[in-house]
Amino acid sequence: MSIKNILIEMKNMSELMVDLAYSAVLFNSKDAAEEVLKLENKVNSMNYEIKKESLVAARSYEDAEKLTALLEVAEAAESIANAAKDLADLVITGFKPHPVFKMVMSESDKMIVRVSVELDSDLANKTLGELLLVNRTGMRVIAIRRGDSWIYGPDKNTLILPDDTLLLKGTEAGADLLEKLASATCSLEDIPDELEEDED
Amino acid sequence: MSIKNILIEMKNMSELMVDLAYSAVLFNSKDAAEEVLKLENKVNSMNYEIKKESLVAARSYEDAEKLTALLEVAEAAESIANAAKDLADLVITGFKPHPVFKMVMSESDKMIVRVSVELDSDLANKTLGELLLVNRTGMRVIAIRRGDSWIYGPDKNTLILPDDTLLLKGTEAGADLLEKLASATCSLEDIPDELEEDED
Repeated sequence: MSIKNILIEMKNMSELMVDLAYSAVLFNSKDAAEEVLKLENKVNSMNYEIKKESLVAARSYEDAEKLTALLEVAEAAESIANAAKDLADLVITGFKPHPVFKMVMSESDKMIVRVSVELDSDLANKTLGELLLVNRTGMRVIAIRRGDSWIYGPDKNTLILPDDTLLLKGTEAGADLLEKLASATCSLEDIPDELEEDED
Repeated sequence: MSIKNILIEMKNMSELMVDLAYSAVLFNSKDAAEEVLKLENKVNSMNYEIKKESLVAARSYEDAEKLTALLEVAEAAESIANAAKDLADLVITGFKPHPVFKMVMSESDKMIVRVSVELDSDLANKTLGELLLVNRTGMRVIAIRRGDSWIYGPDKNTLILPDDTLLLKGTEAGADLLEKLASATCSLEDIPDELEEDED
């Protein structure tokens, strides 16, 4: 993997981890917390890769100055990832949630949900453009885990495959719907075409 | 401010800071970096408030256990904010950007822009629902700074006022357009109603 791609991955992963970690705490979701721990390992090893690549690449003091900036960005990404991991750890170790979390949660209109796409789900083998999930369910796909790799910021041409794990952000009602769609206990025909106007 | 509201603010601010800080580094934007520094001060003082409130609130060991979780969440939010500040500091102190940043930037279809709404701008005194900025410009308002306070996750009923500072996320082309709209050098009539289908 090139330095460029490592950096893109570190940025995307650390941002996703923050999102996921807060969701894990507020909704006391072990699912989300486990996803954070998986990502944290990846971010750590990518930071190590960037350090190695940078040391090998430095040929002059000018190189070194630019590579320093790169190392600092990678270091900050790892710090962000570590802070997210601290949040996730609370959930994994079974913390006593403060009642205020429930209050924050119920006021937050946005939650993150993780669903697995079954083979016979209506989501399988369709593009996001075909599915129109935002309009139909109020849930936006923010990332897709396919085996060991991740797709961030998918667009309307992104194809959903069976066995994909989707991370979606949206309302609690939408989350229920998505779980049903992914597990094939409900089909697209069961839900209306449009929830409400989209301009959030 | 109640503990609940402090926690919501810390969560929202730290998430926004991560977004802004990466944008600041990749686009070498002092504007975005300065916004991060302002937010970091607020997050630090909110963490201090939460510590004080928690110490006062603890009446029993059971209280204390729950308050510990709260303190750890606040601490993690501050760590996230600090890491974002480290990124922003690079930009403020005038770092030598590594060429890879430009490459990452040009591949990222999403950037953050900050615009000030002039009195005679077409954006002023309209709701987001009326403006349909996502459809028209590809830019989504992620936060609004009004004087010293912030509005996060505005919805279609949110009214834009003159002197508001908008933080928007979207494409580089959209950013140019928004700057023109906000500074009243271009009006809504100059741009088409719809850029492209919205299902990202």
